[in-house]
Amino acid sequence: MTKIVTAAVLVIGDEILSGRTKDRNIGYIAAYLANIGVDLREARVVPDVEAEIVAALDALRTRYAYVFTTGGIGPTHDDITADAVAKAFGVGIDEDPRILAMMRRRYPGGELTPARRRMARVPQGAELIDNPVSWAPGFRIGNVIVMAGVPSIMQAMLDSAAKGLETGVKVVVETIEAGAIPEGRYGDALGGIAAAHGETMIGSYPSFAEGSFRNQIVVRGRDAEKVAAARRAIEAMLAEIRGGARPA
Amino acid sequence: MTKIVTAAVLVIGDEILSGRTKDRNIGYIAAYLANIGVDLREARVVPDVEAEIVAALDALRTRYAYVFTTGGIGPTHDDITADAVAKAFGVGIDEDPRILAMMRRRYPGGELTPARRRMARVPQGAELIDNPVSWAPGFRIGNVIVMAGVPSIMQAMLDSAAKGLETGVKVVVETIEAGAIPEGRYGDALGGIAAAHGETMIGSYPSFAEGSFRNQIVVRGRDAEKVAAARRAIEAMLAEIRGGARPA
Repeated sequence: MTKIVTAAVLVIGDEILSGRTKDRNIGYIAAYLANIGVDLREARVVPDVEAEIVAALDALRTRYAYVFTTGGIGPTHDDITADAVAKAFGVGIDEDPRILAMMRRRYPGGELTPARRRMARVPQGAELIDNPVSWAPGFRIGNVIVMAGVPSIMQAMLDSAAKGLETGVKVVVETIEAGAIPEGRYGDALGGIAAAHGETMIGSYPSFAEGSFRNQIVVRGRDAEKVAAARRAIEAMLAEIRGGARPA
Repeated sequence: MTKIVTAAVLVIGDEILSGRTKDRNIGYIAAYLANIGVDLREARVVPDVEAEIVAALDALRTRYAYVFTTGGIGPTHDDITADAVAKAFGVGIDEDPRILAMMRRRYPGGELTPARRRMARVPQGAELIDNPVSWAPGFRIGNVIVMAGVPSIMQAMLDSAAKGLETGVKVVVETIEAGAIPEGRYGDALGGIAAAHGETMIGSYPSFAEGSFRNQIVVRGRDAEKVAAARRAIEAMLAEIRGGARPA
């Protein structure tokens, strides 16, 4: 049987919703998970408000195999992700002795400020997620993986966390260039092909630049043979249109 | 009284969740709405699955003043947004005579394919949203604004839709450069300032490049005087740290 492992991303941060910062983590995690055989099914962006974070965590963690959060684990007052995760799981939160030991080596004497100690707070029972970029770890509790919001650090944490993930059968993807053929010319035929190849997912994606569309058709599925069969049917259909054999 | 108008974004598309396409619409809409005095409070990305779209629409449209959707309004079989919106509102969906008339001018004779006619389908009672880029309109029904997924087209539709929106008092934003001062050095003092300036929202945002952090502190609020007061307190605090007057 085909093993499917699902996931959601939860981006936490006022800075994304205010437009100050453009999120780059959803797209990165989406491509990363596809590549290791985990299906991203949903993403959400919520503000730095504990009740919102808890509600989104509970909606997502009960529904998907994994939830990846980004943002809100730094040393300032607006970093409230760890507390929200502890609340969602109904566990306590305290300074982790492993992180405190790292911090004492890094910040001798008075440099270990209360703000910095905030970064040692993780929910009870969490495993730490290694951060080779800027040392302060992320953590995992249950099926929730808590990572930094800064993209380079998030990416390093995702590499660390990925080692411990269950993965499923990878989705096979084939992309067919439809070029300048308008979607409206091949849409009907493509719908027929999609209906006839039900175990694949077929999408048509226009991009628009300099006043004209370019289209790509993408076939996805877990059975490479079935994806290839759909791809051949699409290529034959496009060849007919290009050859003028199929009316507009 | 301060008028607050809230909104959510719903991005619809397998291509975002599979990692094929990087979403650029959430960030654009976030900045656009902030600029006209609408508060973006949440964003979600869902797949091309009707039940998922309907559930997300219902969760968001009952909670926020406006919901802006992107994606799924083209001519191919995977474009199911209009049907999902009709279902969410419990109304019928049919070809709109205004759009059909546009189409008949644009596609004479056999060029008006059934696929193209899909783009004429809008929920009963919807207003059309002008699309100066590629003609096929978006639509608005109730508080839901349905736009294309291609960024340049979405942006043109958002301009069209914005004319009909209620807006609130714009958030005033001031950004203070903390430069290379680590968050862990100013986090405690900043938390105190945030607590003392409760009618502002204060965030600290690191970016990380070439092995070091640069930090910015952002103050947001609807009262320019209060935002300025918080900004001055933060600047004084950073000056103390820079001058060595405040211990690490």
